Amino acid sequence: MTAPERRFVITFGCPDRTGIIARISGFLAEHGGWIVEAAYHTDPDTGWFFTRQVVRADSLPFDAAGLRARFAEVAADLSADSSWQVSDTGERRRAVILVSKAGHCLYDLLGRVASGELDVDVAAVIGNHESLADITRAHGIPFHHVPFPAGDKATAFEQVRKLVDEHDPHAVVLARFMQILPAELCRDWAGRAINIHHSFLPSFIGAKPYHQAHTRGVKLVGATCHYVTADLDAGPIIDQDVIRVDHGDSVEDMVRKGRDIEKVTLARGLRWHLENRVLVHGNRTVVF
Amino acid sequence: MTAPERRFVITFGCPDRTGIIARISGFLAEHGGWIVEAAYHTDPDTGWFFTRQVVRADSLPFDAAGLRARFAEVAADLSADSSWQVSDTGERRRAVILVSKAGHCLYDLLGRVASGELDVDVAAVIGNHESLADITRAHGIPFHHVPFPAGDKATAFEQVRKLVDEHDPHAVVLARFMQILPAELCRDWAGRAINIHHSFLPSFIGAKPYHQAHTRGVKLVGATCHYVTADLDAGPIIDQDVIRVDHGDSVEDMVRKGRDIEKVTLARGLRWHLENRVLVHGNRTVVF
Amino acid sequence: MTAPERRFVITFGCPDRTGIIARISGFLAEHGGWIVEAAYHTDPDTGWFFTRQVVRADSLPFDAAGLRARFAEVAADLSADSSWQVSDTGERRRAVILVSKAGHCLYDLLGRVASGELDVDVAAVIGNHESLADITRAHGIPFHHVPFPAGDKATAFEQVRKLVDEHDPHAVVLARFMQILPAELCRDWAGRAINIHHSFLPSFIGAKPYHQAHTRGVKLVGATCHYVTADLDAGPIIDQDVIRVDHGDSVEDMVRKGRDIEKVTLARGLRWHLENRVLVHGNRTVVF
Amino acid sequence: MTAPERRFVITFGCPDRTGIIARISGFLAEHGGWIVEAAYHTDPDTGWFFTRQVVRADSLPFDAAGLRARFAEVAADLSADSSWQVSDTGERRRAVILVSKAGHCLYDLLGRVASGELDVDVAAVIGNHESLADITRAHGIPFHHVPFPAGDKATAFEQVRKLVDEHDPHAVVLARFMQILPAELCRDWAGRAINIHHSFLPSFIGAKPYHQAHTRGVKLVGATCHYVTADLDAGPIIDQDVIRVDHGDSVEDMVRKGRDIEKVTLARGLRWHLENRVLVHGNRTVVF
Repeated sequence: MTAPERRFVITFGCPDRTGIIARISGFLAEHGGWIVEAAYHTDPDTGWFFTRQVVRADSLPFDAAGLRARFAEVAADLSADSSWQVSDTGERRRAVILVSKAGHCLYDLLGRVASGELDVDVAAVIGNHESLADITRAHGIPFHHVPFPAGDKATAFEQVRKLVDEHDPHAVVLARFMQILPAELCRDWAGRAINIHHSFLPSFIGAKPYHQAHTRGVKLVGATCHYVTADLDAGPIIDQDVIRVDHGDSVEDMVRKGRDIEKVTLARGLRWHLENRVLVHGNRTVVF
Repeated sequence: MTAPERRFVITFGCPDRTGIIARISGFLAEHGGWIVEAAYHTDPDTGWFFTRQVVRADSLPFDAAGLRARFAEVAADLSADSSWQVSDTGERRRAVILVSKAGHCLYDLLGRVASGELDVDVAAVIGNHESLADITRAHGIPFHHVPFPAGDKATAFEQVRKLVDEHDPHAVVLARFMQILPAELCRDWAGRAINIHHSFLPSFIGAKPYHQAHTRGVKLVGATCHYVTADLDAGPIIDQDVIRVDHGDSVEDMVRKGRDIEKVTLARGLRWHLENRVLVHGNRTVVF
Repeated sequence: MTAPERRFVITFGCPDRTGIIARISGFLAEHGGWIVEAAYHTDPDTGWFFTRQVVRADSLPFDAAGLRARFAEVAADLSADSSWQVSDTGERRRAVILVSKAGHCLYDLLGRVASGELDVDVAAVIGNHESLADITRAHGIPFHHVPFPAGDKATAFEQVRKLVDEHDPHAVVLARFMQILPAELCRDWAGRAINIHHSFLPSFIGAKPYHQAHTRGVKLVGATCHYVTADLDAGPIIDQDVIRVDHGDSVEDMVRKGRDIEKVTLARGLRWHLENRVLVHGNRTVVF
Repeated sequence: MTAPERRFVITFGCPDRTGIIARISGFLAEHGGWIVEAAYHTDPDTGWFFTRQVVRADSLPFDAAGLRARFAEVAADLSADSSWQVSDTGERRRAVILVSKAGHCLYDLLGRVASGELDVDVAAVIGNHESLADITRAHGIPFHHVPFPAGDKATAFEQVRKLVDEHDPHAVVLARFMQILPAELCRDWAGRAINIHHSFLPSFIGAKPYHQAHTRGVKLVGATCHYVTADLDAGPIIDQDVIRVDHGDSVEDMVRKGRDIEKVTLARGLRWHLENRVLVHGNRTVVF
């Protein structure tokens, strides 16, 4: 596998009107920018326009900072909201993963990273149990054990925050972490904290969703990858998937079958996030 | 297509214990019964045993009534609940379909019936609007228009009941009927009234589920075929399915995409019901 | 349902280079064109660029012919291949459907047209059997019976050609037609003749694919919607889908389950074709 | 997770006739056998009957060998073919995994084993490259490197055979092994050697199936888990799955997306095999 060529990724939202694409593509063409991917979306309900443009870095006469500086004028002209970005695929992405006891999502992510499929540095794994320390370290990644005593979760969360923030990660991945993030962490990590919930949201919010699903007698179980917000399991959805179950499946069977879609849905959502494919719009996402 | 050979279908639930299968299959073998399909399920939570047995009619020395009379002893020995049945595939199934304006499920069902795929006599279609009268009559099926004035739905429902009950149908199909059945009809048609709800229940109960789905920003929309009970959209689920949507899909797009799974899910659930494949157990179903 | 607003759809392929998007969007912006959908794709293997642009008709100072005339210059500048088009959603689409005995795809298409979901005039249905005459006429659509005697298919095809060509349709839909189009019809209807094949191509080309699938013991059966070319079942694929089967499914069960995906896959492919979403590139398609 | 209770699993095939179920269940009932799972299938084409029965070990007055000895009489009475088995869930299953360079299936299987989801002892991993030695050993499993020089594969295969056979494994898993087993190994490991092929067979047999899929322009890519036979990629299929791709997906994207279904399909097929759920019938499988 040769290294993919370096690219700049522009993501962008602004009020819809005539001439936006012309303005952006005109700006890029003027500097020789070679667009290799371009996606657009207009939300008719809110009249908001979204785009993601991928440009070959070697086609432009400046680096990412230079592009960012020049693009600011375009963004201002188009009244872009403040979330517009220019990112550089030459800059390594960093993630920190939070886990509890269940290892399937962690095993899956580490396997993807080790095989080069998921292009991210896992700076650390933090667990409220020690069960997953060995496999983490076998991958050469630091594991931090932060116990969550029932009476003092606040202190534990402060410790987690410190361990996370020192890496300034692009993604904080809750890989079946099972602890509810306090509101201020939700706020500070907004747009970076990604959770996998083991149900097809908004069904079965909260604890023991497979038990809820079994009781209700559903014929499919699901998984939802979403950004974490202060409202439990109610953040913007990045991706979802389902798998068929039937009357023969016990709760344990549902748990087992569900794991396969949890893993895939989390990995897919994380990949899209790291590639700057996910734009948040209110409580919904645009995934380019 | 030659006529499928005539079969008797035994469905059955009783407390689990040793020897049930031996008792049933011993009884059948004693009379020369040739079993062509046999399915079993034990629910470990309730300790309840379920079975469905399909026997070639020509292998037994008696007709369905005779089998029923003799099987009663087996059922009593095994403390079967009162819902055990012996049905005869030689007896034509009858259905009445209730509709409103949206025709996709009706078109689909009529097409399946006309092509011989769905083996049922549609005795009548009843609509609270007249939009679907022509297509129904083009299939040679009587269409009854029963208006539902906002202030007097009770009278309308009495009329519907009369039109339905005169056919004593095996299935009352709510093919996007959009009116909530009163509790007494739910009770009287229990286990026969089948609804298609246009969401992946228990998400988005009640009105305008696609609007709710769009607002929540889900990445899949669903459909649920279930028995109607007095609790709105909370009856035993027969089947469910989903289809992928994305940020580019408006509510109208979701409605359109969802139709394809509504049609298929309803048709599949109805077929299973008519073939006596669905056993209700509390608020869940066993689908053999 | 209000009529959707009128739009012009530009589809386009040319060698990839810098500035294409700027050229097109600049041209549109110059005339006040309001782009409501825009999609791009570059094929890295062939270096070919594709786009589909949807513009609000009322935002431009000219009609479709005017746009076409002016856009010709852009197309020439960019060395577009000759297949570029400007189409007008205000112009009704016409289709002719070819059938044999199996009605499921025809029932499905007619239901979609009748309910307004599929926005096309079905100018005629042509069958080599008469089985589907009644349902066609019940929808107010002319049905033509053209027998295909074993010894003289050429004459039959000439008759089909005449019946089709008099409508100059945007789509000739082979809805389980079961007769192999002669090479000259494949050529003359290239890019307009759409077939549904009842397998997941390239598996099980030719006759009786469900029998082939059953013999091979596959665990999924499929359907493929594709443009017809002179190579049997080898034309550019528009869409495919599959459905799960198992050891309990006879060939007849596979046929029945497969129908549900045949119907949906054909309807989806036809819709995309009629909306000018499908661009053919060699033997592959770009579906925007 | 408490240990699941011990069970005996009877699998069985014989010519169909009246009274088979009565004979088997009568035999079990006579000895107090508590059946917890029972599945039946008759193949109408060949007139062959199949069953899988799961009995609580503690309900019978003898061990697996005792059951086997007594069941032999039933098997003989019913003219069962020689492949009938009584297996004991109390006996640990052993597997040997063969790999090459691509690690995704191995990572996945090891993760499932480590988390207790897949109940098997991986006795050894054998690779024709060393790339996967470290992760294997991190799981405490021996890794053997057997190089496959282009000119002398026969010697390499003899070495593999020795390393495999000393464990007498229930399953020899070709987890993207990429070497074609010689005919005598196919024969000696018949019904135990399980391969994952990275296409929806019978499409794209042999080398580079994703390249073949890309060239053909398919809209779904697949994976097939099957028993290895001397005919390349033509053995009995255990399970298959597919994932959607589109024109934007390069061969590399297809490879990446395909991995997710390869992993799941292999793991599912292996689990079914280890649970004695897969009965081979000619070139097809019955999966209970």
